[in-house]
Parts: sequence; C-alpha cells; structure tokens
Amino acid sequence: MSLSGRPGNAGSRLHNHLYDALGLDYVYKAFTTTDLPAAIGGIRALGIRGAAISMPFKEAVIPLLDRLDPTAAGIESVNTIVNDDGVLSGYNTDYSAVRDLLAAGPADPARPFVLRGSGGMAKAVAAALHYCGFHEGMIVARNAEAGPALAALYGYAWSADLPEPGAALLVNVTPLGMEGADAEALAFPEAMIAAADVAFDVVAQPPRTPFIRMAEAMGKAIVTGTEVIVRQAIEQFVLYTGVRPSPGQIVDATRFAHGEAAAARLAQAYGLGG
Amino acid sequence: MSLSGRPGNAGSRLHNHLYDALGLDYVYKAFTTTDLPAAIGGIRALGIRGAAISMPFKEAVIPLLDRLDPTAAGIESVNTIVNDDGVLSGYNTDYSAVRDLLAAGPADPARPFVLRGSGGMAKAVAAALHYCGFHEGMIVARNAEAGPALAALYGYAWSADLPEPGAALLVNVTPLGMEGADAEALAFPEAMIAAADVAFDVVAQPPRTPFIRMAEAMGKAIVTGTEVIVRQAIEQFVLYTGVRPSPGQIVDATRFAHGEAAAARLAQAYGLGG
Repeated sequence: MSLSGRPGNAGSRLHNHLYDALGLDYVYKAFTTTDLPAAIGGIRALGIRGAAISMPFKEAVIPLLDRLDPTAAGIESVNTIVNDDGVLSGYNTDYSAVRDLLAAGPADPARPFVLRGSGGMAKAVAAALHYCGFHEGMIVARNAEAGPALAALYGYAWSADLPEPGAALLVNVTPLGMEGADAEALAFPEAMIAAADVAFDVVAQPPRTPFIRMAEAMGKAIVTGTEVIVRQAIEQFVLYTGVRPSPGQIVDATRFAHGEAAAARLAQAYGLGG
Repeated sequence: MSLSGRPGNAGSRLHNHLYDALGLDYVYKAFTTTDLPAAIGGIRALGIRGAAISMPFKEAVIPLLDRLDPTAAGIESVNTIVNDDGVLSGYNTDYSAVRDLLAAGPADPARPFVLRGSGGMAKAVAAALHYCGFHEGMIVARNAEAGPALAALYGYAWSADLPEPGAALLVNVTPLGMEGADAEALAFPEAMIAAADVAFDVVAQPPRTPFIRMAEAMGKAIVTGTEVIVRQAIEQFVLYTGVRPSPGQIVDATRFAHGEAAAARLAQAYGLGG
C-alpha cells in the first residue's frame, strides 16, 4: 500500500500491473490518514506487507518503526516500510535509486557538480552523491537554513545563486520544469548546460523537462525523473515481494502507470529497442 | 476487507467480482490479526470503508466501535463494520439475512419450530425467528449453559435431545452435514423431516447437505446455507457501496466465489432459469 497526504494512482497501477504480470498474490492500494500512529499500528496489526510513505509522513513515521535501514537512517527520511511478521523496518528507496543511478557511472565523481534544491529529496540526492565519491560540489538553494545545513553535512559549498558555468554534473531537485506553473522553467541556464557533461533531473512529469530536452539536444548524457521514480518503485517492489521484474516487464508497467513517453524514455535508458 | 482468525478467499472473490461487474472503484482483501484493537484502529485511520468480522472477533470487536446497529446490538455480535469518515458502526448481516429469508414466508410463524445449535449463529437465527413472530419453538443443544440461556431469551423451550416429530420448521445451526468429518451426518432424523414443512440449513458447504437433500426429495420447502451466506454478503456489499446488485449479478458472483452448485441453488431460490 501507500500512505501520503495526497494519494495518487500511479503507484497502484505500477505495482498491481507487475503483480499480475508476475503472477504474484498481492494487491496494492493508496491510502491517506489523519492519524499516522493508528495507521502504522494498523499496518502492523493487519499484516500489510509494506507501505510507500510520501509527504508529509517521511520524517514523522520514524519513531513509529522498529528499525531503520541505513538507506533511511543516514538521511532521517523513510519512503518505504517493510513489515516482517509485525516488525516494521524503514527504508529510503529514493536514496538507493539515485545512488544506483549515479553508481552506474553517467558522471565522473572527480569533477564538480551543482545540485539545485534543499528539500527532502535533495537530502537523498546529496547523500547519494557523497556515497558515490563526489567530493567537490555546490548546493544551490534560496533557503538560507536548509541549504547551508545540507551542504555542511557533506562538506559541499552552498550558494543562494547559481555559479558560473563549469560544473560537469547538474542535478535539479526543484519543481522547475514540472507540469503546472513551472512547466516552462529551465532549471539551469543554457551556458551551464553547455559546459556540463551530464544533466540529471528528478522531475518525472513530464518525462522530458525543458532542462533535459536542452541537454539532450546538446548531446549530453541525461538521467531523468522517470528513471528515479520507476527505479525507486522497483526497489520497493523487490523489498515487498523478493522478486525482481525484468527490464521488459518494468517498461510495460511504466507504460501502464506513467504513459508512453515515460516508457519510451525508460526503454532508452535500459538500452531496449522500444 | 475481512478480518477473521482463519481468512478464506470466498468473500474476496464475491465482492471483487461484483466491484468489477458494477464498475465500482473498490478492492476487497482478507486479513487476520493478533492485535484486534490496533487492527480496528488501522481500519479507522486508513479510511478502509468496511470490514466483515468473523470468528473469533464478533463479540470482542464491540467495545472498539463507535455505535451498534440494532441488528448487532440485539444479539451482541458484530459481523460487519462500516466506516463513515472515522465513525465505525457495527452491524450483523447474518441476523438480517436470516430475518429477511424468514420474512419472505417459507414457514408459518404460528406453527412450532426446532432449532439445533446454541453458538453465535444460533443466537442470530433465534433472534430472527422471534422477530418474525415465531413464538412456539425449541432450542436443541447439548451445551447446558448456552442452550437454556438462548431459549430463555425469547421464551422458547430448551432440550438437550431432539423431540418427537411434529415441528413444522427445522433449522440446523450445527456443523452436521458440513464438508469434512460431519459430511454424512443428517442434522434431523427422517421422521422429523417427514413431519415438517420447511428445512432450513445454515451449512453452506456443500450447497445441499444430507438434511437438505432428504427434505427436497420429500418435496419440502428448503432454505440452504448458500442463501444465508450470499444474502448476508450482499447486505454487506450494499452497506459498503450503497449499490444493490441484480439477482443475475449475484448468481454470477456466487458461481465465481462458491462454484456452480451454489450458483444453481441460488438461481433456483431467486426463481431464475439457470
């Protein structure tokens, strides 16, 4: 199941599609609550196998769990609960998904990065960068508390404003470029993109933001929010079921949950024909 | 959802089949628990719309609810919870299903009945008989506490042993005739069945018990456990969704959940061709 302030349908569609495709006897449902302790107690008492945790419960859920996986403990944020016979463990698959995407080597850790954002997802991305050996980088965030605090945690620089071009890896962890009011916004200026090697956007809707489209047009390597959102959901799926779907099954499920453009982007990332 | 000591699959199959047939956005899942208060708290906190309650939770759940419907209050037993924005109401659709089946008039309330059994379901059936105006009857039960107590509640007689033939309505609320060790057992002797007008069995598996088969062969009116189990589930369905399926939809869902023999019996009871 999932538990969030504003439950959506994409997670249910992705997971239920994969349960069907793999013949697994699970069902996935999205929930919200105004009583988090009772909801978590219910997950434990009803033997619900697992729960995706979204805003605004990612930090508040921690004292209600029995143990924290290192993926969640390091950033003090839980996006996944696994229930083993009433023992609830907290994980963070946003962190592990970004870590795995960076570990696959799209960007050189010896070169500098710029990360825009300082919220919960930015914490996960900064921790993943640090884990993958990126030691020279800058957190760009208007928030004069969260920005410097996040930078200090890993010895990165902080700035309220974007620096001059020169960073090799650009990571957007703001809503810039997201469907809605910011849909036309470019997360980084053209000159910074031109100077970079890799464009990494956690915005998943649309599958190609203006930032990603421009980077791709310039021939840069890209990592999109689609890879992040699907990969973190697949890590949840593996934690819940012990079964890892094939790339083809993941692309099919992505098409069902997130649409054709997301599926096409994912097939490209997996090196599949379609 | 359902909550019971030993969760089965028939309820999930019946309800989910009807959600699909009627295009309703619900999903039904069976649960068990070792922590009833936390499980009920979870139903409330997660906004789960309703729950079927089975053994061993039908009495224990009462203090955890916010209100009791008269169908449950009268017999101090809840088999259904409905959650209206966090307010949990307890119902008993076993009682209301039996009451409706008796109210449809298969048996003359002015004539005597014999009811075998003194458990929770026997309480529901005795209350339904009383509600429908049956004032002359006997509870037959070995249990020398529960039997007399149930009889005294409605002014019925009690006996540990079966009486001489003569009752017009025979009701079996014991496991006699149920699939398993008692499958061959005849709930009432042939002479009692011959003297009766109506045979009523709450045993639903198999759809025709030896008691029902013998009564049918003698040309008696019958009411079977299939009618009880399906009708009580449909009453739950209406409480959860506000939608009442058609007889044809109910027969189809019964076929999917309980098999062809049960569906055929139900179609016969509804006066449908199939």
